[in-house]
Amino acid sequence: MKQFISVNDVENIDQLLEKALEIKADPFGQQAVGKNKTIGLIFFNPSLRTRLSSIKAAYNLGANAWVLNAGADSWTLEMGDGTVMNGDTQEHIKEAIQVMSAYCDVLGVRTFPKLEQKEEDYSEAMFNKVKDLSSVPVVSLESATLHPLQSFADLITIAEKINYNPANPPKEKVKVVMTWAPHPRRLPQAVPNSFAEWFTKVDWVDFTIAQPKGYELDAKFTHGANIVYDQEEALKGADFVYAKNWSSYEDYGAIIPQEKDWQVTIDKMKLTNDGKFMHCLPVRRNVVVADEVLDSSYSIVIEEATNRIYSAQTVFHEILKGLK
Amino acid sequence: MKQFISVNDVENIDQLLEKALEIKADPFGQQAVGKNKTIGLIFFNPSLRTRLSSIKAAYNLGANAWVLNAGADSWTLEMGDGTVMNGDTQEHIKEAIQVMSAYCDVLGVRTFPKLEQKEEDYSEAMFNKVKDLSSVPVVSLESATLHPLQSFADLITIAEKINYNPANPPKEKVKVVMTWAPHPRRLPQAVPNSFAEWFTKVDWVDFTIAQPKGYELDAKFTHGANIVYDQEEALKGADFVYAKNWSSYEDYGAIIPQEKDWQVTIDKMKLTNDGKFMHCLPVRRNVVVADEVLDSSYSIVIEEATNRIYSAQTVFHEILKGLK
Amino acid sequence: MKQFISVNDVENIDQLLEKALEIKADPFGQQAVGKNKTIGLIFFNPSLRTRLSSIKAAYNLGANAWVLNAGADSWTLEMGDGTVMNGDTQEHIKEAIQVMSAYCDVLGVRTFPKLEQKEEDYSEAMFNKVKDLSSVPVVSLESATLHPLQSFADLITIAEKINYNPANPPKEKVKVVMTWAPHPRRLPQAVPNSFAEWFTKVDWVDFTIAQPKGYELDAKFTHGANIVYDQEEALKGADFVYAKNWSSYEDYGAIIPQEKDWQVTIDKMKLTNDGKFMHCLPVRRNVVVADEVLDSSYSIVIEEATNRIYSAQTVFHEILKGLK
Repeated sequence: MKQFISVNDVENIDQLLEKALEIKADPFGQQAVGKNKTIGLIFFNPSLRTRLSSIKAAYNLGANAWVLNAGADSWTLEMGDGTVMNGDTQEHIKEAIQVMSAYCDVLGVRTFPKLEQKEEDYSEAMFNKVKDLSSVPVVSLESATLHPLQSFADLITIAEKINYNPANPPKEKVKVVMTWAPHPRRLPQAVPNSFAEWFTKVDWVDFTIAQPKGYELDAKFTHGANIVYDQEEALKGADFVYAKNWSSYEDYGAIIPQEKDWQVTIDKMKLTNDGKFMHCLPVRRNVVVADEVLDSSYSIVIEEATNRIYSAQTVFHEILKGLK
Repeated sequence: MKQFISVNDVENIDQLLEKALEIKADPFGQQAVGKNKTIGLIFFNPSLRTRLSSIKAAYNLGANAWVLNAGADSWTLEMGDGTVMNGDTQEHIKEAIQVMSAYCDVLGVRTFPKLEQKEEDYSEAMFNKVKDLSSVPVVSLESATLHPLQSFADLITIAEKINYNPANPPKEKVKVVMTWAPHPRRLPQAVPNSFAEWFTKVDWVDFTIAQPKGYELDAKFTHGANIVYDQEEALKGADFVYAKNWSSYEDYGAIIPQEKDWQVTIDKMKLTNDGKFMHCLPVRRNVVVADEVLDSSYSIVIEEATNRIYSAQTVFHEILKGLK
Repeated sequence: MKQFISVNDVENIDQLLEKALEIKADPFGQQAVGKNKTIGLIFFNPSLRTRLSSIKAAYNLGANAWVLNAGADSWTLEMGDGTVMNGDTQEHIKEAIQVMSAYCDVLGVRTFPKLEQKEEDYSEAMFNKVKDLSSVPVVSLESATLHPLQSFADLITIAEKINYNPANPPKEKVKVVMTWAPHPRRLPQAVPNSFAEWFTKVDWVDFTIAQPKGYELDAKFTHGANIVYDQEEALKGADFVYAKNWSSYEDYGAIIPQEKDWQVTIDKMKLTNDGKFMHCLPVRRNVVVADEVLDSSYSIVIEEATNRIYSAQTVFHEILKGLK
């Protein structure tokens, strides 16, 4: 693997999943690959799961890690090309990324969308700049439009729950429903885009998106998904319910007032095929999902977060083993 | 050892002390126990000694460590049960702690009291929540009411100074005086509570608390201590003088105006049995204690801070060795 | 090596350079020296290169590292002697440095000048305090007046570019020109002082400083350098052009209005002997130097930043090998 920015960097999803399950079963067994390697992690925004799970993944591999909170720990970065830098920005991203990549073997980077100009965010201008400037392979720790380490962890979690066996994949399709849910703030589409991009490619999954009208995601990510506007209808028979808020893609970054309540409740979970509740976290309790669901055996959000270690470890492993 | 939240988690203080002295004599000799283990450290408040000594303790054990500044590095945490999270808090502590504990083998956590509601602080509501939510053993890096790693480091320091020999404990009791001292701000009672809780349990110590009236600590921690209101009288013959400010427990969190000067000076140290001056640091110079004491051979505050490595290392060791 | 605060701590520059080239050729070959050692890194100001290259250097040596952002991560420090600490400062630097040095084997410290009182900055009051208080060897990660790890990395970079062979040093002198360049803010003299202090001591270098009048550096660092006031004249025949802004030493900390444009442009680089462009970074693009230079093959700023790993690693190695 040369980089990990989207599912398109994965040659074979099933094989990568199999590798992740192998690594989880023997988490310290790949330290020859990590020896004397350093994973650099740059955050342009706060992070808990990604930060700590990536560090733990590096440690499991016997690799080293460093973390930089861009801005807080270092200098204010200039993003514009050709800028005369006589103002507040102290270092150009061109130098910053080239230099940071000189200090590690794999560079993990988190960027966020501004949710102002669709084109700017969806061109992944910032992330592509990072990727082009880095002298080492780049791993997305979430970009403006995608969060592939999260989607891969979600896949590992679902696979575990159905006792997935690569030699004998499920005969009946597993019904996975991603449902939009309410949130007080305008949120990126990165997680749902990425989840859709991955799960439309898993051939043993029947993938449905339940959402209010106006929240259609970019079709390039949802191609092949069933898109429905009735949440309860969608949840019937679901094996997995993946809740997530996102702001509008069409009316870019907007929150569209909705009359219907899309919060996931225990009554809605009862419509499922004894389905499991998933969320990437952090989650707004009693807004996105009721306490009664999160605190019940329906919820597998902690297993999901735990698998962030193994999605990162597998990706780092696949990249590191290809180096020198 | 299953957790380390107070002295009550210690089966046998003398044996733990002996272990600490052993570890200090051979600080890199326990790396088989630490191999592939990760110590997670979460701070809800600033820290210097605890942060760095805990990291060093992990390194000495051959373990890995990560540090999270809760709030600054990650999301704003919600503490309330049942809250509809449509305001400023972004993640509930329920998820945060469950997730963080999934990324380590031992979880060290620092919390602080608010000094507003005695019941809230003294029920250790926050710390108990952390403990209950964590899937791995929890170590207090200071809680609302106790600071056991500090007290244990204090015990190691005193033991070293008297050439403590476990096979042949002191025949004459060692006189340890904890004295209240002034401070411009309202401080927690965690350090003095904890010191009292430990030293009332050490049978070769004669333990006295010198304090102004109104500063009586919670009796459940000081049971067995001599409590006196005349500082100079108390210091006579002291082998160790442990200075610390705390706010009132009775009039919870208040600073009670005092006429007498309780700063520890060189003249006061001369009343002792060539006693050693101790303080957990950070210390307000010329408020809590005079420069002339801190800069003299009376002071052993740096040895004390150094022993924070070995108290943490011993506790991590005892917990890690019990894991799988 | 007992400490690394200036070039005066280096017994033999050529031998240290040779060691650095050896280490760069085999970066993981010295791990016996780093085993169970901890490098502590304290920053009183932001840092990117120094922070990450020092961490990477420690990792390469098989050593551990910790980083403390003084102030942000820990307590507010008091610098004054004899202060009655009843105000905002929470811990005296006396305790802070003694304690931090107890938690590591080598202490790296970054301090900055205030650019207010020349005497205060040039006496290195703060750094000397740190050095005197530390119980372990101290490495400057930049002080008020010097930045020796940068200068050493610059030397390594120049040596690489000329295929420096210690057994057969250059017969013709290498022309190195350090040129002042514009900047919107008042900057320290640490980098140019240090560069001058090192390069006036390298016998195979012909060292020139090009600068506007009024920007003369402290003569104790520039003794032996050619100082010229015509930038274009100086650049003729240069093999290396080292650009840097600094504020006035004479009119301490001032920016002196200049009519001439001192920005380094491609036309100016064409005056050189196909010279290489260097800068310590971060650099203000199109203020200090034009994009056309930085983005051309004239620029070796990234190699220079990369060599920060090896200057730090060599210095840590030389210090660590002398311990116990």
